[in-house]
Amino acid sequence: MTVSQSILFTDLYQLTMGQVYFREGLAERQVQFDHFFRSNPDYGNHQAGFCVNAGMGWLLDWMASATFNSTVLDSLREMRDPLGNLLFSNDYLAFLESSFSFEQLHIKAIPEGRVVHPNTPLTIVSGPMVVAQLLETALLAMLNYQTLIATRAARIRHAGRSQLMLDFGMRRGHDFGANAGSRAALIGGADFTSNVGISQYFGVQPRGTHAHSMVQVFMALGMPEIEAFRAYARSYPDQCLLLVDTVDTLNSGVPNAIKVFEELKRRGHKPLGVRLDSGDLAFLSIQAAKMLDNAGFSDAGIALSNNLDELAIWQIITQIQQEASRYGVDADHLVKRLSFGVGTRMITSEGDSSLGGVYKLVSVDDGDAWQPAMKLSDSASKTPNPGKKSVRRLYDRRGNAAVDLVSTAGEKFDITADNTVFHPVDVSKSRVLKAGDISRVEDLHAPVYGDGKRLLEPEPLAVMRERRIADIECLDPGVLRLVNPHIYHVSSSEELSNLRSDLVAKLRGQRQRA
Amino acid sequence: MTVSQSILFTDLYQLTMGQVYFREGLAERQVQFDHFFRSNPDYGNHQAGFCVNAGMGWLLDWMASATFNSTVLDSLREMRDPLGNLLFSNDYLAFLESSFSFEQLHIKAIPEGRVVHPNTPLTIVSGPMVVAQLLETALLAMLNYQTLIATRAARIRHAGRSQLMLDFGMRRGHDFGANAGSRAALIGGADFTSNVGISQYFGVQPRGTHAHSMVQVFMALGMPEIEAFRAYARSYPDQCLLLVDTVDTLNSGVPNAIKVFEELKRRGHKPLGVRLDSGDLAFLSIQAAKMLDNAGFSDAGIALSNNLDELAIWQIITQIQQEASRYGVDADHLVKRLSFGVGTRMITSEGDSSLGGVYKLVSVDDGDAWQPAMKLSDSASKTPNPGKKSVRRLYDRRGNAAVDLVSTAGEKFDITADNTVFHPVDVSKSRVLKAGDISRVEDLHAPVYGDGKRLLEPEPLAVMRERRIADIECLDPGVLRLVNPHIYHVSSSEELSNLRSDLVAKLRGQRQRA
Repeated sequence: MTVSQSILFTDLYQLTMGQVYFREGLAERQVQFDHFFRSNPDYGNHQAGFCVNAGMGWLLDWMASATFNSTVLDSLREMRDPLGNLLFSNDYLAFLESSFSFEQLHIKAIPEGRVVHPNTPLTIVSGPMVVAQLLETALLAMLNYQTLIATRAARIRHAGRSQLMLDFGMRRGHDFGANAGSRAALIGGADFTSNVGISQYFGVQPRGTHAHSMVQVFMALGMPEIEAFRAYARSYPDQCLLLVDTVDTLNSGVPNAIKVFEELKRRGHKPLGVRLDSGDLAFLSIQAAKMLDNAGFSDAGIALSNNLDELAIWQIITQIQQEASRYGVDADHLVKRLSFGVGTRMITSEGDSSLGGVYKLVSVDDGDAWQPAMKLSDSASKTPNPGKKSVRRLYDRRGNAAVDLVSTAGEKFDITADNTVFHPVDVSKSRVLKAGDISRVEDLHAPVYGDGKRLLEPEPLAVMRERRIADIECLDPGVLRLVNPHIYHVSSSEELSNLRSDLVAKLRGQRQRA
Repeated sequence: MTVSQSILFTDLYQLTMGQVYFREGLAERQVQFDHFFRSNPDYGNHQAGFCVNAGMGWLLDWMASATFNSTVLDSLREMRDPLGNLLFSNDYLAFLESSFSFEQLHIKAIPEGRVVHPNTPLTIVSGPMVVAQLLETALLAMLNYQTLIATRAARIRHAGRSQLMLDFGMRRGHDFGANAGSRAALIGGADFTSNVGISQYFGVQPRGTHAHSMVQVFMALGMPEIEAFRAYARSYPDQCLLLVDTVDTLNSGVPNAIKVFEELKRRGHKPLGVRLDSGDLAFLSIQAAKMLDNAGFSDAGIALSNNLDELAIWQIITQIQQEASRYGVDADHLVKRLSFGVGTRMITSEGDSSLGGVYKLVSVDDGDAWQPAMKLSDSASKTPNPGKKSVRRLYDRRGNAAVDLVSTAGEKFDITADNTVFHPVDVSKSRVLKAGDISRVEDLHAPVYGDGKRLLEPEPLAVMRERRIADIECLDPGVLRLVNPHIYHVSSSEELSNLRSDLVAKLRGQRQRA
């Protein structure tokens, strides 16, 4: 499987177009590609109001290992077209061998963990045509998926009121894609993952409980459920979290767990709690809490799993708040002892399983100047912003994020003056940000590749998480809403908006002549 | 990223439960797990009536490389629980190092490429408890995803009337999961993939065209669309497939492509055709066909792409059949020159992005006999069939697949006698297969691992595809229907049905005592 994760983790046309550029003398022409997405995930009955950017560190690791080494070149040397002719010429392959390196690129990106919005360039790649083009496939497969999952994790964490949240999704992931999914979940909102390899990658500890199969083994051997629990407690006296729904949650699992907890307590250990994996999780949580309370284990946690996502968790918490008191259980205390194990719906982003981010050519250096590149057939809404740009986040007087403003590179923003900003697609729509309305302006991009080398070293998980936590705290509650969220403002500066209008007009003329 | 694809591509609990089994003297106890799925994919507005099994070859490659080597053991040696205690003891790690090998397993599986149905074991794994349990996570992540995608590819191929179909999905895949997705698409229905690495893995040629960016580069440098086409034709005179929608499909792209095709023809080359990637693909296909016909290129292909799936392709073909003649274009001839490039919706299985296959403990050897293992809290529909089993496909007199029959191991099926078979869940429902109704009986499983070694060597793509083609030809048209397919019969033998009833009754008693 090694070759399939090498630099050949790419679409064929990146290599065949490269050969055209090489033949036409355009291979080293400087170009710029922007990576952005056009709309937040829409899961059908609920929708995201923001995304959490993720994946760059993973992509950078791949780039460091992706070279035209002899194995790769030998593969390419043997490729043939359907008529049996060799696909790649020796001079092109020699060029790739001697001249191709991702270190020729300049890359700026919004850091991982930051909140991001549609139609703003997350990643800006410039460099030689052949090199920048060849990055496309891996960049899209890696960044889009991780951003999709980090976003989902942030929503699920929000719904779970920042209670402990575990990623249990790897078995439902798309093959080795599960690793990227667990990584993104940890950045976006999961406290831990059951994925051992990715925990190791990040230098954090994995977490887990046990499966139904463990109880079944003991029972098939003629022992009751409690003997399975006792065996688990013998191995993990200080980490005893028991799955209580293999036989019957309230009539067997919880009572047996309590017996084992009492045995542990007598030996000086503190049990962790129980996990519920089927049935009405809200009702069973209340009943389990009551039984644990009555036995003196009011600290014991209640871990929930089984097809959870943000809506399911929201509903469970709502139901607990409405019903717990009827059974003499304090709802707020119960919610604070919950934790959530989330699988399929997070790691596949069920309901919307691709972000649809794109990597669009926006500028080409003709030797004298950077010429904007556009696709004429696109509708105005799909036309990317031309040329070199910066993205700034404008904060209002309360310190909340108010606008992400896309400007031409080098353009200033004066917070002491009135500023007219424009709708990103419909340039006839504008609004005025009054002097003093904006308290702070922040440039979102940071350099990632440049000066012939990788500039961004692998970041600790904690750093990426802190960015996410800080950014989410600056969002208006309406943007965080799980269903029909308020639309966050993305605007274009006056200069960029004018540039875009001029270019669209020019291109309309060009199209009429074409 | 290496450790995350090693044997540590697993959920933590597989390793922590292993330690419990080790401590309790159960580590080498023989057990059996069945892998099966409970329902065909449901994409919302359309549904699968069958699945195409895929992934085993890929899993076997992983198993061959997944060992407790020193890197892995060093990782495990450092893992700690939340209190800071070491998670794994030295004696357990020494046991894993000296005694763990996937070669201890016996595995039988339905071969890749075969049509499969819900509630029949696709994979049957038996062996030492610790080893069989540890296979779970990788097996599910690999087999479920590939089966999901092979199934989708088969549906898309069917909708496209077996016209050339290309997998263009890797950029929309879930990180490196895209490789498994491309592999499965090739087994299930795609003729080729743009994925270079996976083509190399299978020893087949990748395919592709060119991107909009190639045309945009030339235009940004002041050259018209046709110069980009000419450059492409210079590099690939015998593989010239031109993407014609960068400027304006009918007013620029197709006329320019025709000019370049005429230039190629004069130099003795045969152009391949055009690709349409936006707009009303049915209408544009008809118009492009007419223009190509009028210019003498009635053989030139028309490749379609842009958010295609089985419903979109079905709709495009239907529309062509209804409208082509109005423009003087022969619909059947046009359909035969179409090809389809399919991306996001195939590689993410949009609408249903996980198969939900499970890996359930079904038997444990207590030293004297194999004891069935069941999860008492499950509803009857979720209760897996106990014990050792075989799966047979029964063909009717026309040679069509009629029933997949799950039996106890060793049970005979006499086609010359009447046979009563039972509903797989509701044992009160049965029907009689009359003597002579069944023309052929076929055992679906083949050995994969046994005798201390891997028995199934990597299979050529062609072999897996032939299985899929042959199996799909044996399906009733109703089962192949894209929307509301006919439900294929999966039945239990009388012996298995009785065993299940007895066991459920016994377990009900056990639950009352628990």
